[in-house]
Amino acid sequence: MGDLLLTGAHLWGHDSPADVRMRAGVVDAIGSALDPSGADVVDVAGGLVLPGLVEAHCHLDKTLFGRAWVPHSAGDALAERIHNDRTRRHELGLPDPDRATALLTQMVAAGTTYVRSHTDIDPEVGLRGVEAVRAAAEQMAGRVTVQQVAFPQHGLVSNPGTADLLAAALEAGVETVGGIDPAGLDGDPVRHLDIVFGLAERFGVGVDIHLHDGGSLGAWELGLIAERTKATGLAGRVAVSHAYTFGDLSDAQQGHLIDALADAGVAIVTGAVYDFPVPPVKRLRAAGVTVATGHDGIRDLWGPYGSGDMLDRAMHLAYRSTFRRDEDIELALHAATYGGAQVLGVAPYGLAVGAPADLVVVGAGTAAEAVVTRPVRDLVVKAGRVVARAGELV
Amino acid sequence: MGDLLLTGAHLWGHDSPADVRMRAGVVDAIGSALDPSGADVVDVAGGLVLPGLVEAHCHLDKTLFGRAWVPHSAGDALAERIHNDRTRRHELGLPDPDRATALLTQMVAAGTTYVRSHTDIDPEVGLRGVEAVRAAAEQMAGRVTVQQVAFPQHGLVSNPGTADLLAAALEAGVETVGGIDPAGLDGDPVRHLDIVFGLAERFGVGVDIHLHDGGSLGAWELGLIAERTKATGLAGRVAVSHAYTFGDLSDAQQGHLIDALADAGVAIVTGAVYDFPVPPVKRLRAAGVTVATGHDGIRDLWGPYGSGDMLDRAMHLAYRSTFRRDEDIELALHAATYGGAQVLGVAPYGLAVGAPADLVVVGAGTAAEAVVTRPVRDLVVKAGRVVARAGELV
Repeated sequence: MGDLLLTGAHLWGHDSPADVRMRAGVVDAIGSALDPSGADVVDVAGGLVLPGLVEAHCHLDKTLFGRAWVPHSAGDALAERIHNDRTRRHELGLPDPDRATALLTQMVAAGTTYVRSHTDIDPEVGLRGVEAVRAAAEQMAGRVTVQQVAFPQHGLVSNPGTADLLAAALEAGVETVGGIDPAGLDGDPVRHLDIVFGLAERFGVGVDIHLHDGGSLGAWELGLIAERTKATGLAGRVAVSHAYTFGDLSDAQQGHLIDALADAGVAIVTGAVYDFPVPPVKRLRAAGVTVATGHDGIRDLWGPYGSGDMLDRAMHLAYRSTFRRDEDIELALHAATYGGAQVLGVAPYGLAVGAPADLVVVGAGTAAEAVVTRPVRDLVVKAGRVVARAGELV
Repeated sequence: MGDLLLTGAHLWGHDSPADVRMRAGVVDAIGSALDPSGADVVDVAGGLVLPGLVEAHCHLDKTLFGRAWVPHSAGDALAERIHNDRTRRHELGLPDPDRATALLTQMVAAGTTYVRSHTDIDPEVGLRGVEAVRAAAEQMAGRVTVQQVAFPQHGLVSNPGTADLLAAALEAGVETVGGIDPAGLDGDPVRHLDIVFGLAERFGVGVDIHLHDGGSLGAWELGLIAERTKATGLAGRVAVSHAYTFGDLSDAQQGHLIDALADAGVAIVTGAVYDFPVPPVKRLRAAGVTVATGHDGIRDLWGPYGSGDMLDRAMHLAYRSTFRRDEDIELALHAATYGGAQVLGVAPYGLAVGAPADLVVVGAGTAAEAVVTRPVRDLVVKAGRVVARAGELV
């Protein structure tokens, strides 16, 4: 693979325009008037360069993307929605590597270079979801890096056999162990966390727990997760997704919880979806808590929304956070880039020499403008290779 | 102007594909195998036809659209934001007919055929905003119908001279009289409503009041507005924009208020903006209250967001309302079409014989899919004339 040299680039976070030279999949040099010899030269003409976008929370195994519209068929209650998922996924041929590939294609075209997908595992579906997502990731190898979370969507303590399947998935290379509402859905928070953190220790993997539980229950569980993280020495490798409880807490309660998360090294992943509360991004970041973002479901049996475009997602996060100033809107973009990379354990990462050569070029004067206007991606580069141009896969 | 015949159309709300013939600016026939003689025939090949979209609440006079990105410069407090608006609008050359025209151009390209714009009027800016919006509307005449609300953004009772200017604007043909937080911003709810409804009666115009006031204060004001509407016989001609108070009320309190609005014939206009509460659309509609939607500010000194695309706005409304099923998502599209037309007093309107030939064609299998995916507008027709094609003005 030859070198790639972008000229006339405006790099996010850099004051003056610069060239970026990429060699052997890595950013090799950033500066002015870099030597073009031996490189494919692309003049990006003042385009804004962002690091490759990071989708930190999605469900590739569930998506109906890339086929005809499927009207949503579930009732509003959680029990109806779970029933709808468990009955219709088979009928619709899920999990389906082709649909997952279609969605990954759209993600890459929109500049995403890393994806964390929570994959359902239960005695009924077994590891078929893991295999489908792996097949899709192989289809898209070299264009996007996909990692999976072994996700007990339909319960862990309450769904016998699931824990063993999670272990089998981790044994087979799944990168992270998941969990879900240890109290509200699974009914036994202590045993749930015993299993999840036990698997994390046994397989040397990180943790990413769905926490929809609100109010004092959710806050208490978040505290438990922080305690477990400290006890297991997993600081920096544990994330809590959603954390809707923040919307129910007083400022003081939020403050105590944020301090506990910062102290334990627990990250927060928020999608800013529907009307669910968005954790206080600015306050979390100010306290040193990592914040990442992702779509959650995209066009699936849980809901019909989602584009796969992480600038779209950053817009939703900024908008719901009532961020208006450029520096605030950039916090949302940080979640869709650097914050996501931290949660996924991608290091080095970013617009710096020595980092993987993953980047996206858009026509925008500032990073905030890119979030607000979400222009077509002029160029997407993964590991130093152009993988999409003008919003289409190369 | 010749006739226009669309063939192979899938009309929203109609069961089977049909042709639509337009003559003299009006929908002349809907049916199968219509006579093409004397008509320009456009085969829309199964495209979905929606009535022309209705932007029921925006601020054309404030927009910075169509020029380089202007980073937001205000602090978060309301007082800082008002100060920012009053000082920077002059510096940035607002109100500006060219920027308003640029935004209207984008709106038309996205299928909007009717716009209600709230235009600032105060002793400092006088009627310059009204004139700027009128100039832009004239530039875009035949492509989009623009009506204005004489809007006392910076107070009415509390800003001497403003009432006379509102009267002058109405005298000069502005279609609707506005108001803003009669208690919270203007400080004298009874006198504020005396002036607003007095002007409505004097000039025979409708009313559209911004109501950001929350909690019991906002609910009380909403009740006052309903009472005034009944007392003045203005049922069906009064709208309240935003109505954030709904987010603070119990189910029972919401119910009482919704009954009062339905009884008085007061419509609700909601933008589903930022993290502000969205009134309960489904419940309002079920009670017979008209619901419309609009962007509110688009790329202006109050905030940098907004695309001008009413399918985008319908998506935000549906998403924040946690609408997942097609029939629910269509409630949001109704607000961006029929609901908006009711608020603007556009009648007849819609996909029916005798209505103005205003419509938009998109590539979507269902109306809900159009809201979720917001595809490029294949064709936009205003008064029987193609005004945009493939997302670009003709």
